[in-house]
Amino acid sequence: MNKHASNITPQTVSTGPLPASRKVYTSPKGAPGLKVPHRQISLHESANEPAVRVYDTSGPYTDIDASINVDAGLARPRTEWVKARGNVEEYKGRDVRPEDNGNVGEKHLARPFPHLQQPLRGTGDGPLTQFEYARAGIITKEMYFAAERENLGRKAAVEGAADRIAAGNSFGAAIPEFITPEFVRDEIAKGRAIIPANINHGELEPQIIGRNFLVKINANIGNSALSSSVEEEVEKMVWAIRWGADNVMDLSTGRNIHNTREWIIRNAPVPIGTVPMYQALEKVNGVAEDLTWEIYADTLIEQAEQGVDYFTIHAGVRLPFIHLTANRVTGIVSRGGSIMAKWCLHHHKESFLYEHFEDICDIMRTYDVSFSLGDGLRPGAIADANDEAQFAELETLGELTKVAWAKGCQVMIEGPGHVPMHKIHENVTKQLDVCDEAPFYTLGPLTTDIAPGYDHITSAIGAGMIGWFGTSMLCYVTPKEHLGLPDRDDVKVGVVTYKLAAHAADLAKGHPAAQLRDDAVSRARFEFRWEDQFNLSLDPETARDYHDRTLPKEAHKTAHFCSMCGPKFCSMQITQDVRDYAANMSDNERADIERGMADMREKFIAGGGKVYVEAGE
Amino acid sequence: MNKHASNITPQTVSTGPLPASRKVYTSPKGAPGLKVPHRQISLHESANEPAVRVYDTSGPYTDIDASINVDAGLARPRTEWVKARGNVEEYKGRDVRPEDNGNVGEKHLARPFPHLQQPLRGTGDGPLTQFEYARAGIITKEMYFAAERENLGRKAAVEGAADRIAAGNSFGAAIPEFITPEFVRDEIAKGRAIIPANINHGELEPQIIGRNFLVKINANIGNSALSSSVEEEVEKMVWAIRWGADNVMDLSTGRNIHNTREWIIRNAPVPIGTVPMYQALEKVNGVAEDLTWEIYADTLIEQAEQGVDYFTIHAGVRLPFIHLTANRVTGIVSRGGSIMAKWCLHHHKESFLYEHFEDICDIMRTYDVSFSLGDGLRPGAIADANDEAQFAELETLGELTKVAWAKGCQVMIEGPGHVPMHKIHENVTKQLDVCDEAPFYTLGPLTTDIAPGYDHITSAIGAGMIGWFGTSMLCYVTPKEHLGLPDRDDVKVGVVTYKLAAHAADLAKGHPAAQLRDDAVSRARFEFRWEDQFNLSLDPETARDYHDRTLPKEAHKTAHFCSMCGPKFCSMQITQDVRDYAANMSDNERADIERGMADMREKFIAGGGKVYVEAGE
Repeated sequence: MNKHASNITPQTVSTGPLPASRKVYTSPKGAPGLKVPHRQISLHESANEPAVRVYDTSGPYTDIDASINVDAGLARPRTEWVKARGNVEEYKGRDVRPEDNGNVGEKHLARPFPHLQQPLRGTGDGPLTQFEYARAGIITKEMYFAAERENLGRKAAVEGAADRIAAGNSFGAAIPEFITPEFVRDEIAKGRAIIPANINHGELEPQIIGRNFLVKINANIGNSALSSSVEEEVEKMVWAIRWGADNVMDLSTGRNIHNTREWIIRNAPVPIGTVPMYQALEKVNGVAEDLTWEIYADTLIEQAEQGVDYFTIHAGVRLPFIHLTANRVTGIVSRGGSIMAKWCLHHHKESFLYEHFEDICDIMRTYDVSFSLGDGLRPGAIADANDEAQFAELETLGELTKVAWAKGCQVMIEGPGHVPMHKIHENVTKQLDVCDEAPFYTLGPLTTDIAPGYDHITSAIGAGMIGWFGTSMLCYVTPKEHLGLPDRDDVKVGVVTYKLAAHAADLAKGHPAAQLRDDAVSRARFEFRWEDQFNLSLDPETARDYHDRTLPKEAHKTAHFCSMCGPKFCSMQITQDVRDYAANMSDNERADIERGMADMREKFIAGGGKVYVEAGE
Repeated sequence: MNKHASNITPQTVSTGPLPASRKVYTSPKGAPGLKVPHRQISLHESANEPAVRVYDTSGPYTDIDASINVDAGLARPRTEWVKARGNVEEYKGRDVRPEDNGNVGEKHLARPFPHLQQPLRGTGDGPLTQFEYARAGIITKEMYFAAERENLGRKAAVEGAADRIAAGNSFGAAIPEFITPEFVRDEIAKGRAIIPANINHGELEPQIIGRNFLVKINANIGNSALSSSVEEEVEKMVWAIRWGADNVMDLSTGRNIHNTREWIIRNAPVPIGTVPMYQALEKVNGVAEDLTWEIYADTLIEQAEQGVDYFTIHAGVRLPFIHLTANRVTGIVSRGGSIMAKWCLHHHKESFLYEHFEDICDIMRTYDVSFSLGDGLRPGAIADANDEAQFAELETLGELTKVAWAKGCQVMIEGPGHVPMHKIHENVTKQLDVCDEAPFYTLGPLTTDIAPGYDHITSAIGAGMIGWFGTSMLCYVTPKEHLGLPDRDDVKVGVVTYKLAAHAADLAKGHPAAQLRDDAVSRARFEFRWEDQFNLSLDPETARDYHDRTLPKEAHKTAHFCSMCGPKFCSMQITQDVRDYAANMSDNERADIERGMADMREKFIAGGGKVYVEAGE
């Protein structure tokens, strides 16, 4: 062991519950053995209302009863579900080769994960992917699990669910009052939702991504050619899910990619996505034109055996589209897109990803790796939004969606990028149309280019809107976007920002239970239950810190005033007077008021010789 | 002098230009004596494009040729414009009384501003307000000034202005290709825009607020019952406008309000707004029921003589509406609204603001103080958005708008608050309808309640959208909203966040010149002109700092790579290859590509025995 750099120790990851929270597990009817996690936030006894349950992606790290050992990895209950379903076999996987870790010398090689297991693969004898099971009418444990999570463990619809749906605007989505496992199955069968769940990711707590479910968010992590260590990357994943990331993409480049990824996946309760092209490029020393189908295909298998749940595949960057980007302000900004563009131009050949797309499907189907069809021609500037290049690629992604479905694969579609507000609806509507409602997964979009340093915010505006209009998952943007690599604080700010944007979208779509948390926060605010307000918020630490900077004393957390108005006057308290008044109003009094109101209006309209001016005169 | 606390020294305010920026002045045709300020950002010589001019509200503080002396206040050129127009008289104003400063003892009294001047008032002999001049067909210097600013000093429309307007979506606004002084006059005459410009605010650099102009933002400052000093408040104003606040509201409470405000206005090149009720309440020791019309009216005059440009008047909080808030989750959250509700309930009488509304108009008209009709019943929670109480008040504000116009006053309307995305369009559309397109001025709105500590972001989503839909000015929200008092950093973050939201709205509306700055940033980004990217951004300091945390070396600011991909591979550089390729493509080659594309599609559709699945099967 000593010959490897010891990059991981159990102490390096963040554990323990968030304030006032504990992990609770429920089991769905129909799959009694499943333990589906939720976070339950306790309220102060004066609240006189039940604890609030929220969607919880943080895994065992926030369970005080779980023992965390990064060296051992998380438990792998899902492996048994997969084996029990059959149509899979264990086999001796591909050997790790020096180029998988960037030919790093022994001295700098990250310690391999100590408990490697034999991978599983589909035998081809029957359904293997969630899509195939769904189409065969079979509800998998993953589907039960995902449905139970969406309902926060409730056994019935929330009160007034139909009214809440009717009051929202889902832009043609079909949000049900209650998510049944059968509904999950049906949405997957229609291609409108996916459960990213590689059969080799036994540690996974499955979730569903689709327009008729809660909007999900993704956080990107990754070492880089210039900085970061393996140790930091695992903690970044744990840190990102602690604050609510539903998915994590490992965008590592450079050395030690293979070993880093193994550590991440073995410790990840959330789906892990990658862009396999990044590793393939490392294998040819960064020279795009040296890429071959064989190297790429081998990389897909390497990563699929490890358990990566979805691959970004930029198969829509076709030779005929490349010249369409020539007059753009920022050309091709997608890393994967530009790699393929360079390859196509150099060889003057159609993209090998496009030409081998069915082969790619065969590999991904074997492990149930979901497609995330990459938008290699996404706009990198407001000026380039919704242009011919982007939409040409999108049309191709629509074609490829159908090919992948025919092959039995799960598919989602990546989207932009930089789009001004008035072009967002067109963008998502076109995606839903040409991709037959396959889930859309967008980066932002940023609604202006003029605020580097604040692009988590320029993009939160776009993310909230595109989520509302029909995007299923939002890829986060951190404050460092365009400028540098996100650190720990940036990851947290990015995740919380995207959680709030996704939640704003859930509210606007009319998800029946979404507003319960808003109402709980607002009641706590109104009743001066400061601790409850902090604990119910997306980031209790920051909320408490901001409060305490003005009013640091403990007593101020129970005082019925805040720093805005001070102790002498309080608008919140006045409302209690209003309630007392309204409760004690007689019918006569009410009538008097109505009459007085009419009189007063009369006085203004007719009285005093005043003549109303008409607007626009 | 020594007997007063010396709260202000010239050294305490932030001066000097932003990076690579200098102040330039232009003069409009038709008013050659005016000096209209803009900020001009120089680009690196390699950019091969002209310097970029941006809207500049920072006043002389960023002009290296200006000498700043807070004790003397800014120059008052506007006083001469006002006097030259006539219909005004100088008079001995109201004496400052102990209660104006909260009866503070001599020891704690803030030093009075040393150069008090006699106030001006309208004589009633002819037009006085910008609204009256506009209706009389007269273009004031303020109108020339505002038009010149909106055009950034250009003498003609930008290239392709008509196309840019057509490509946007202004939701029925009427954005012109070029802002003429006559257009400004016409919009004011229609009540669709205002120039807040008290005749006693001689230091003001006028600006126009209306739906057909650039979206403006307001920053709130103010001491508080619990903390802050006069010194901090003046610097907060200077600091807020340095980062782009178009307007500043002084929401001070407690002691020294009068003297603090005098210092602020005498040093303010932007419109200053207040909520006079806050000071009136101080005069009755915080006991709402002790308020009287006389005390309130006297406070209006006190503040009007000082030069406050707009007053928030909560005259729509009527007795008959108060019970409508009884079943809300958060009742009445507006401080002014709850003061009036308490008064109405205690006396069981209609609001004296409503009953004396015409008297209020007479006072405000005398000084050209603009109305900001307050939304005292605005929702304070997602649950309370767009409810009966809010819309009842809004209808009343529509009535009062017409009364104020008939009295010759300028009017804007305040709006919420907390509104989920799907109810924002309804909210602004209703305002435009019932208030006859009087400018809307909204606080956020926050699109979810669950993210205290991030409410600048929950509200930036709403602000971007409501600005797009037709709101003329956005009141900022800082990260401390609901939690504590904003400090210097919070003010900056709030201002920059709202600038980017307002700009996103300008882009979406199709303001013809808005995208010029985005394009300049994006070109700088694409060409690795790091310094230009920083300097063109809303917050150059933060952008540079974030960059330098990953790549601190000076050399990295000219290097053609960034921290995302590192030096070996760069997607931006590939685009140059694409451009060379596209430029050298022959027609035959282009045709080949098109044919190849069609063939490939054929292959997928028909070949290989693959059958496409239909979505939804």
